[in-house]
Amino acid sequence: MNDYSIFCVSDHTGVTVESVAKSVLAQFPHLKFSLITLPFVDNAEKALAIAARIATTPRALTFSTLTDPALRMPFHQAGLSLFDVFDLIAPRVELALGQTAIPSGGHTHGMAHDYEARMDAVNFSLNLDDGLNPERLDQADLILVGVSRVGKTPTALYLALQFGLRVANYPLTPDDLGQNDLPSCLKPHLARLRGLTLSPERLAAIRMARYPDSRYASLEQCRMELRAAEVFFKHYALPVIDTTRMSVEEIAARLRPS
Amino acid sequence: MNDYSIFCVSDHTGVTVESVAKSVLAQFPHLKFSLITLPFVDNAEKALAIAARIATTPRALTFSTLTDPALRMPFHQAGLSLFDVFDLIAPRVELALGQTAIPSGGHTHGMAHDYEARMDAVNFSLNLDDGLNPERLDQADLILVGVSRVGKTPTALYLALQFGLRVANYPLTPDDLGQNDLPSCLKPHLARLRGLTLSPERLAAIRMARYPDSRYASLEQCRMELRAAEVFFKHYALPVIDTTRMSVEEIAARLRPS
Repeated sequence: MNDYSIFCVSDHTGVTVESVAKSVLAQFPHLKFSLITLPFVDNAEKALAIAARIATTPRALTFSTLTDPALRMPFHQAGLSLFDVFDLIAPRVELALGQTAIPSGGHTHGMAHDYEARMDAVNFSLNLDDGLNPERLDQADLILVGVSRVGKTPTALYLALQFGLRVANYPLTPDDLGQNDLPSCLKPHLARLRGLTLSPERLAAIRMARYPDSRYASLEQCRMELRAAEVFFKHYALPVIDTTRMSVEEIAARLRPS
Repeated sequence: MNDYSIFCVSDHTGVTVESVAKSVLAQFPHLKFSLITLPFVDNAEKALAIAARIATTPRALTFSTLTDPALRMPFHQAGLSLFDVFDLIAPRVELALGQTAIPSGGHTHGMAHDYEARMDAVNFSLNLDDGLNPERLDQADLILVGVSRVGKTPTALYLALQFGLRVANYPLTPDDLGQNDLPSCLKPHLARLRGLTLSPERLAAIRMARYPDSRYASLEQCRMELRAAEVFFKHYALPVIDTTRMSVEEIAARLRPS
C-alpha cells in the first residue's frame, strides 16, 4: 500500500499546476497515486474548505498555483505538505530582477489575451482540414502532409489551439501517391510543407481499429503508402516527423516555428 | 528600457516550463520581455551550447524543466539565473514522501500514455461537430449546445485533446430556437448537455468579423438568439457557462467533470 492522493489546487484553470505535478511525480516511478484537480479556488472560503478537506485525507500531497499568498495560508496553517509554484519560484525571480512580485489574481496567468487569434486559427485549421479549400493554402502558417491516419488533424488542431498557428492539412491519397509528383496545389507552398510519417506497423494498427480486415488497414498497403510518401518528402527535402512514439504535444513542439 | 529575454528550456516539449514562466512573470506586470522556448534539450552538447548562448544574452532569465541534473550543470556553471522546476520542487517532494527522486529523462513527463484515448476523442468530437451524426450522441461524455459562434467547436476540441473527453456539439439554429422545445435528438441526453452563452455584444463582434453587415451578425439578431437559447437552458436547468471573458482553457476547466 502506497497510495497517495495528489491535489492540484489552482486559483485558475489548473492546467499549469497539473502539468508541474505530473512532471515532478514522474520522478517517483514507484509511487501510486490518484490526482485530484481543484480549479478556480479563488477566494478565502473555497481555500479554507479545500484545506480542511485535504487535511482529513490520509497520505495527501498538494501542489498549487495560488497567486494570492492569503489563499495559501489555510493550507500552511493546516500543516499540509504544500508545494506552491509561486511560493517556490517567485521569490527567486524577485531577487534576480530586483523587483517585487505583485500577486495579481489568477486571471493573468493562462493565455486569454490571444484568445481570438487562437479561435481564428482553429477555424482556419478546421476549414482546411483533410485537403478542404486548397485555394486558401497560401494563408497557412504550416501545411501538414501525409497518408491517411498519420495524425495530421489532431496535430493541426493542437498547434492552432495552443499556439494560434494556422495549420492546414492535406492527405496524400493512394491516387496522389500513384502520381509522379506532389499534388499541384501543394507545389507553390513547399517552404511551409511538413511531412508526417509513422511506422507501418503502427499505422496498420490505427487503421485496423477502425476498419478491421480491410485492404486499407493491411500492413502491405500501409507500407506501400508510407514508402511512396517518403519518396515525395525526400525529393522536395521536406522536414519530416516520425510520430510513431510521440504524443501530440511532442509533435507540435517539433513543428512549432522557433 | 527594461527588456528581458526569458528562456524556457526543456528536455521535452516545453509546455510545462512555458506555462510556469508565464504564470510567474504575470506577477511582474511592469516587466517587458520576450519569451524564447527551447524544447528537446536532451543531451549534454545541446545543454552546453544553449547555456553558452544564454550567457552572452544581456538581461536573460532562464526557466527550465531539465530532469537530469547533469543537464542543468552547464547553466549553473555559466552563472545564469536558472529557475528549474525540478531543482526547486523535487527535493521538497522527496522529503514529504521519504523517497528519492529518480531523474528519468524527459519523456515521462507529458501525456504520451493516453495518446490513443485522446486521438479517439478528437476524432469523435470532429465527427459530432456542429450537429453531425446525432445518432451517436449517446456515446458522448458531454454535449455542448448554444447558438452559432458561441465557442462550441474549439471548446469541444480542447476538451478532447487535453483531457481525452468525447465531446459533441450541437448548434441551436434560429429554426431550433423558434420551436417550443429543444431538438428531439438532444432530449434523451439532458444530463450530459452543457449550455454555452456569451454577451450579445461579443457575439455580434465575432459574427461581424466574418459576415460584416449581415442580419446574422446584427446585435438584435444575436440578442434574440441568445435569449431564446437561455429559455431552453433555464427550462431544463442545464449548467450554463458564459464565455464572454474566458479563454478556452477556462471554459474547459469549468466543464471538465471532477
